[in-house]
Amino acid sequence: MATSTSIETLIQIDRASSLSLQEQIRQGVVRAIEMGIAPAGSRLPSTRKLADRLGISRNTALIAYDRLIADGHIVSRDRSGLFVAEGRVRPQAWERQVIDPDRGAPVSVAARYVTEWAKVNERFQIPSDWQSYKFPFLEGRYDRSLFPVHEWREASRLALGVAEVEAWSVDAGEADDTHLIEEIRTKILPRRGIEARQDELLITSGTQQALHLVSRLFVGTGVNIGVENPGLPQVRALFAGRGAILHHIPVDGNGLIVDAVPDECRLLHTTPSRQQPTAVTLSMERREALMQLADSRGMIIVEEDTECELNYLASPLPALHAMDQTGRIIYVASLSKVLAPGVGLGFMVGPPEIIAAARRLRGLTTGRPSPNNQRAAAFFLSLGHYDAMLRRLRELFAYRLIALRDALNHYRPQSIAINPVGGGTTYWVRGPDNLDSRELVRVAQARGVLIEPVDQYFAAGTAPKNLFRLGVTSLPQKSIRNGIAELSQAMLSLADAPAIGRRLADKCLGANDIKNKLAGVRLLYRTVYGEPCTIFLNPSGSMTGVSGEDGEDRDEGAWWVEGDIWYRRWNRWAYGETVGYHVVIEGDELSWLDSDRKRVDGAVIVGRT
Amino acid sequence: MATSTSIETLIQIDRASSLSLQEQIRQGVVRAIEMGIAPAGSRLPSTRKLADRLGISRNTALIAYDRLIADGHIVSRDRSGLFVAEGRVRPQAWERQVIDPDRGAPVSVAARYVTEWAKVNERFQIPSDWQSYKFPFLEGRYDRSLFPVHEWREASRLALGVAEVEAWSVDAGEADDTHLIEEIRTKILPRRGIEARQDELLITSGTQQALHLVSRLFVGTGVNIGVENPGLPQVRALFAGRGAILHHIPVDGNGLIVDAVPDECRLLHTTPSRQQPTAVTLSMERREALMQLADSRGMIIVEEDTECELNYLASPLPALHAMDQTGRIIYVASLSKVLAPGVGLGFMVGPPEIIAAARRLRGLTTGRPSPNNQRAAAFFLSLGHYDAMLRRLRELFAYRLIALRDALNHYRPQSIAINPVGGGTTYWVRGPDNLDSRELVRVAQARGVLIEPVDQYFAAGTAPKNLFRLGVTSLPQKSIRNGIAELSQAMLSLADAPAIGRRLADKCLGANDIKNKLAGVRLLYRTVYGEPCTIFLNPSGSMTGVSGEDGEDRDEGAWWVEGDIWYRRWNRWAYGETVGYHVVIEGDELSWLDSDRKRVDGAVIVGRT
Repeated sequence: MATSTSIETLIQIDRASSLSLQEQIRQGVVRAIEMGIAPAGSRLPSTRKLADRLGISRNTALIAYDRLIADGHIVSRDRSGLFVAEGRVRPQAWERQVIDPDRGAPVSVAARYVTEWAKVNERFQIPSDWQSYKFPFLEGRYDRSLFPVHEWREASRLALGVAEVEAWSVDAGEADDTHLIEEIRTKILPRRGIEARQDELLITSGTQQALHLVSRLFVGTGVNIGVENPGLPQVRALFAGRGAILHHIPVDGNGLIVDAVPDECRLLHTTPSRQQPTAVTLSMERREALMQLADSRGMIIVEEDTECELNYLASPLPALHAMDQTGRIIYVASLSKVLAPGVGLGFMVGPPEIIAAARRLRGLTTGRPSPNNQRAAAFFLSLGHYDAMLRRLRELFAYRLIALRDALNHYRPQSIAINPVGGGTTYWVRGPDNLDSRELVRVAQARGVLIEPVDQYFAAGTAPKNLFRLGVTSLPQKSIRNGIAELSQAMLSLADAPAIGRRLADKCLGANDIKNKLAGVRLLYRTVYGEPCTIFLNPSGSMTGVSGEDGEDRDEGAWWVEGDIWYRRWNRWAYGETVGYHVVIEGDELSWLDSDRKRVDGAVIVGRT
Repeated sequence: MATSTSIETLIQIDRASSLSLQEQIRQGVVRAIEMGIAPAGSRLPSTRKLADRLGISRNTALIAYDRLIADGHIVSRDRSGLFVAEGRVRPQAWERQVIDPDRGAPVSVAARYVTEWAKVNERFQIPSDWQSYKFPFLEGRYDRSLFPVHEWREASRLALGVAEVEAWSVDAGEADDTHLIEEIRTKILPRRGIEARQDELLITSGTQQALHLVSRLFVGTGVNIGVENPGLPQVRALFAGRGAILHHIPVDGNGLIVDAVPDECRLLHTTPSRQQPTAVTLSMERREALMQLADSRGMIIVEEDTECELNYLASPLPALHAMDQTGRIIYVASLSKVLAPGVGLGFMVGPPEIIAAARRLRGLTTGRPSPNNQRAAAFFLSLGHYDAMLRRLRELFAYRLIALRDALNHYRPQSIAINPVGGGTTYWVRGPDNLDSRELVRVAQARGVLIEPVDQYFAAGTAPKNLFRLGVTSLPQKSIRNGIAELSQAMLSLADAPAIGRRLADKCLGANDIKNKLAGVRLLYRTVYGEPCTIFLNPSGSMTGVSGEDGEDRDEGAWWVEGDIWYRRWNRWAYGETVGYHVVIEGDELSWLDSDRKRVDGAVIVGRT
């Protein structure tokens, strides 16, 4: 039987916590019960004892215990004290079978993936801790200063009024929040020139969910789909994952080249107002040509309008959907993605029968986006917070973009490849002809500069290797100049790469140096797929690797030194094969050289474990 | 130019609103600006004038205006007043093209659905206003008294602390809330006997999303899948929608009949702890047999554990996943569905590589469930609210189930077809052999009793026609007895149906009676697909129909009387054909008879427009 002392150890007070003192006590007691430290019947410390130990008022302890009694976690027995209640659920014991070695080996069910899906995995991945880098130029990622903390809290608190909770917690099937629908219908859509009835509007968790629903409705094996090139890799992955035949349609400074849409396309995905990823705008002439083409060919158009509201123009071109007279355009957009990391909400507009079908499909695959957030978003819009936020962002981003242009003109003159019309938050930059942008990504990262290679946006084999993209949504204005200076240095160092290779050959370390300098270090690395990867070389000779956007891919392995060669073998990664390299260390840059002393790979030493 | 008077009309005060007075003023001004009633440069009423008209303090008006100025919606010009600010975004004007009749006709893009998806549509639909019926016996729907309003508000408020918002609004890609993961890992999973690491756990918006991710990973055209019969129609629809070959495996009082699983099944979906929809529990012997079968055949098992926590047993059987030694079980569950209408959250447990793949796929199809709700749920669990809620529900439902058993034993002795083990919230009821449960659903609904036919849970052609299900999650204990009495009456009336038919033949109304009694009525009706449908017969001879769970399917039509026959024609529904019937009205029951005076259909008259 647990004594009250062992329960007490789990009741700790943290004066910096956002929980009140009595809430922290309740949390501690509940945790002790759940972890089995305080089984049914254990006695709890008296309120006096607890108050003394924690340095809190006895009244606080009383309030906490009263609530725990009311909730049934503990019971009071007259004159003998407080005890943990009965009724904790635990499964019946069962006999663990001895594994029959013939059948009991762990299986890799991943071997059973249906193959079409593998394509999802090809994307370049941004480190999940990108906010801790000094110069993240990552278009579409938003630095933490931008989330409207106070305004969202106000809207959420309103949505938590008792009457509001009672309204949104009712089981209304797949119906969306009528207030939010009205706000979108009457405030957001008119800015795009769109008139829509309630039954022509569906709330989604973002544009990606809307596209997923559309792809489930209209895209199957062998269906011919047009996508923009460059375009969004997640869109290509969605359609390809449905077995579609993709046609990559080129984009120039006026947007999608309409004449290049092949006859056989049954559905076209396009981003006319701010082309993704180039940020160019489809011209009015092209819009008209596209509508005529769609009508004459019977083509469905999926119009994605990501972040169109960040255009700096007060009077943007109308959405294609606004020009639609035959009901063939499905319009897909989201509330500003500044909100998305916390509260992702989007919407799609289309003919009622399509919306009804998408609604059922949404029910089958995820259910409606959280009604509490729908209601909070409705308040956020109705109180004018959304407009105020957009106004603030437009101004901020305009200044940042000017800072970026000035810095580029200074450090990399003539390098801007695409000049966005009417604002935007990104520049595309062209490096020297022999620049490999994937290599630049790696080298820049070691200098604290995050940039995005753009090959993921292009159909296979069509990407210019020396092109990359710089965005300003993700870092403050004051960092932009220094970031571009660092990036410029990184580009210069790459230009010298062959010379560096010759220099390195003479600097290969001996066995003892390798051991001394590598035992216990942490290495930052990128896999050949562009995934960020952290490797720990333990002094014991074991090593651990953590990879993937969310650190979800891990492996263990071993490293050792024989002669002047450093060897490593992963359990699972790199086919589990043993490979050996020469090692050169310059500052915090580690280079691996093959037996011809040619540099084959490298990593950055970021610390010791 | 709008005068301040026209703006004023949009600023109205509702003292019953959950918004404060100054918030209502801000909302009104923002609405006037957005609707174009107050274009840029319009003058706003002075604070004094506004305060006088609305009967509020001038200070309240001042606060509202100050905030509107700070947010950039209005500007103050010294000595001349307050004006709507510039900068409202409106699209450029464009020339609406004249529609070329050859190409401009509205198209029905729905004709392009990829066919596999049509299967989604077959389900029986519960009226969206089911909470307004007197006796809803709908298992798995929760009456509004059950949502833990105050506890959820407490948890949500904590998640809205500034530090919390700053934590969860960071763009962390697809990472889930670590607090919630820990709560599930250490509190919920141990009750099921499951140990899982962080990287073996993914948060979803509910079990259905988890199943969708699994189906995308493992199910493709021609893959053999085992499902329970009876089982969940939404699960069958998901797998069938992926082109799978479904094998329907029978269920008896001990759960899934393991011996009946065909050799070729590569993946099996099962609900062992509370079989859906029968609520039986898979016996320990069957569990062991199933694990052996899975190992010997290399089969993946998807274990769905919906509402397992509502078992009344303190010591349930362990989950299959707890017995798994070869990593072939994917465990799928949700937080109690009592929370789901407001805040749907679920989770899946599986090998790390599967979880990593499901995480990427989740990013591609919807993104992670709202981080604010994940954090609020973490607080809800850590403060013990979740356990307290489950304890309350178990007690409540146990009493309700006893009340249902007593009522059935009184009004319909010997009718309980399946007796759930260890609690549950539902009884299956067997009616007379000639009972058509779909017909009973319709007749009972007219008496305020909602029941669910069970044929949707069975593979086509295997459903007993006289079986239906009664649940107690959806209505208070005090309504149960009267509800069963009403239901019993409905069953008796059906037993007399042939006699009723003969009686009706003599009661057909004449032309004037039809016109007088039907002009202006509202009819409740069920389509042949079981969809609830409301029809308004306007006195003018037009009519409107609203159908679908969310009222998303609408049609217009016409009705008229010729001779003693009532005719109707929908624009779209029922192939747009004209049909005529004799009409009999008894109380609020309307019957339609064909030319042989045989009753072919009916509806309930619920009011006049």
